[in-house]
Amino acid sequence: MSFNFADRIKQAPVSFLSELFLVSNNPSIISFAGGLPSSALIDTKGIAHATRQVMEEEAHIALQYTTTDGYLPLRESIADRYRTRLGLPATAAEIQIVNGSQQCLDLFAKIFLNKGDHVGMERPGYLGAIEAFSLYEPVIDTVPLQDDGPDLALFEQFVKKTNAKFFYGIPNSQNPSGRTYSQEKRRAIADILQKSNTVFYEDDAFGELFFDTKPRMPVMKYLPDQSVISGSFSKIIAPGMRIGWIYAKKEILAPFNVAKQAADLHSNFLCQKILHRYLTTHNLDDHIGYITRVYGRKCRLMCDLLDDQLPQLSHTTPEGGMFLMATLPPGISSRRVFDEGVKQKVAVLPGMPFYVDRGGEDTIRLNFSNPDEEMIKVGMSRLADVIKGLVHQ
Amino acid sequence: MSFNFADRIKQAPVSFLSELFLVSNNPSIISFAGGLPSSALIDTKGIAHATRQVMEEEAHIALQYTTTDGYLPLRESIADRYRTRLGLPATAAEIQIVNGSQQCLDLFAKIFLNKGDHVGMERPGYLGAIEAFSLYEPVIDTVPLQDDGPDLALFEQFVKKTNAKFFYGIPNSQNPSGRTYSQEKRRAIADILQKSNTVFYEDDAFGELFFDTKPRMPVMKYLPDQSVISGSFSKIIAPGMRIGWIYAKKEILAPFNVAKQAADLHSNFLCQKILHRYLTTHNLDDHIGYITRVYGRKCRLMCDLLDDQLPQLSHTTPEGGMFLMATLPPGISSRRVFDEGVKQKVAVLPGMPFYVDRGGEDTIRLNFSNPDEEMIKVGMSRLADVIKGLVHQ
Repeated sequence: MSFNFADRIKQAPVSFLSELFLVSNNPSIISFAGGLPSSALIDTKGIAHATRQVMEEEAHIALQYTTTDGYLPLRESIADRYRTRLGLPATAAEIQIVNGSQQCLDLFAKIFLNKGDHVGMERPGYLGAIEAFSLYEPVIDTVPLQDDGPDLALFEQFVKKTNAKFFYGIPNSQNPSGRTYSQEKRRAIADILQKSNTVFYEDDAFGELFFDTKPRMPVMKYLPDQSVISGSFSKIIAPGMRIGWIYAKKEILAPFNVAKQAADLHSNFLCQKILHRYLTTHNLDDHIGYITRVYGRKCRLMCDLLDDQLPQLSHTTPEGGMFLMATLPPGISSRRVFDEGVKQKVAVLPGMPFYVDRGGEDTIRLNFSNPDEEMIKVGMSRLADVIKGLVHQ
Repeated sequence: MSFNFADRIKQAPVSFLSELFLVSNNPSIISFAGGLPSSALIDTKGIAHATRQVMEEEAHIALQYTTTDGYLPLRESIADRYRTRLGLPATAAEIQIVNGSQQCLDLFAKIFLNKGDHVGMERPGYLGAIEAFSLYEPVIDTVPLQDDGPDLALFEQFVKKTNAKFFYGIPNSQNPSGRTYSQEKRRAIADILQKSNTVFYEDDAFGELFFDTKPRMPVMKYLPDQSVISGSFSKIIAPGMRIGWIYAKKEILAPFNVAKQAADLHSNFLCQKILHRYLTTHNLDDHIGYITRVYGRKCRLMCDLLDDQLPQLSHTTPEGGMFLMATLPPGISSRRVFDEGVKQKVAVLPGMPFYVDRGGEDTIRLNFSNPDEEMIKVGMSRLADVIKGLVHQ
């Protein structure tokens, strides 16, 4: 028989992921296409230690069902970090645990979006958000992302024209561009939104990964009653545990919690316990300092190699995070760079999936967190050959 | 500001859960209201052993991102068990890992249901399914559940009249009723559905928990091209890891996988690895044999005590699972039994949340898996006092 699926899934954007997966499974290909943190920087010894303690002391509890909102001491640790690091008045009651930031995208869209509602995001915008939001059949409006944040005139126009339910942005080391909003633009965005009913959804997956380790003030600081922040342990501790959170007012968390319960009852309790144990027995700041030093070095290396070997390419210069974005010379399609790259054993991610409304054919996203420095050197040299070859065709 | 949420969440059924939570957090109250497997029967030693092996041998992999479909060797173990235990021709390609059965409910509804579509379920029906489905704003039709399965005449009428996308049922030890479909009814259901476009969604959370440990043939056996099965490790190994699966044709898994990726990328990898390690180093059949012996004893004890102390109550007599359902004497409301019960330190779950279209006021669900035998004795005696007190008012 043929199955009669829902409209939302028939309209879902076709993912590039299966091709990517083939690439990432081929060890002879150096991949800048993925989005993985460095496996070498996961503190497996520390996590193993925390895991052993949980299993020895409270396995019966950690392996049983728990509440939907998540493990209270873990939520207290998260709230505490917002207070001390950013001076935000967070409490555990304003933190809900989810399966990584991605689940925030799904549940937030679920509680806010009727079919046909407007939602805004950056252009280019995070692919995972496009995929999550699309399933609720909204109209997605985009605002061009400049080096210091969204184009303010177009942002204001978007807010006034669409009455969007929310604007989704990544002010810190954005995925895919690697750009960071200036403080001035954060304030300006807050000012514009204050006069509207549009919520600011700040995806802060990379806020702890600035190479100078200095925190940037979130938009929430200037817009406390109208913004939420999502965070994750994926990039600072380990992604395989799938533990992230949303920090939001109780008025939003109440329906969010209903949606979370309907979605999967609660996030896995064992990993919540392990993470809490890890946080209380290890120095997270030291660990993050180590990660950011390594990522900063890799990022500089990649930028330097791009400047040296591919001066015809322009690229962003990230202050943190895991990605940068490059614009190809005129007439070179990123799709061809991908295809030719795979042949020459180097993979990049074409920019198109980050553009809801088409475009981005001349852009590629490059990940510098996962490959080591030697791989970056070899891979950049291969990429230079690929692009030079295409230029001369 | 006041937030303008989506219609789906404004219409969500109000959960009884917060009241329940207060009850379950009070250790002086004996609770038959919850839905927890026995903590004492979780093989913490075995799971700790498997966990240690994973952390020692492959922590860098288990703590990194993985693919959306789930860990292949785990999916192979699950498929293998369907082949050997039930003779179903399952392959790993037909298994997708999810966060417990609950996530199947959400994602299955997400890929099938447009607003206003019809979906069927048993009456009474599983609360978690009602909550998950409701957020997609379908019309939920119910078919009365008799002792041996759905009322066939009404089931046929439902199928013919509604052209529903799917019928959701729990043929083995249903939640909340504890009832099991007869083989005749399974065949008859398959025959009726075969002439329609309605898929049979078999939630098989309890299929391994028959007290006689004998498998019952799933509806899929008689309807291979038009049914799916969801399963879970929550009741046979441990719920805190939140690992379940769906077994379905590739035509269904393709959009299901898109929805899963949008929902949370993948289920937590560490627990997938631990479960796979546990399955390859421990005898699951022996462990399940132990669980079912204990649950069978607890169930018989509860039934006997009900018959002895509350003969004015009628109740189901489960062949497996974790729940039975009782019907109160005329004029006694389950809501009052709950309120009075809490005062006298015994909690039951009123049946109303299991009835989409109102009703069930005279029913209560009783869980026998979590309390130990002593608690069952004391709790049943308290419950008898509560109900006798209400009868004599």
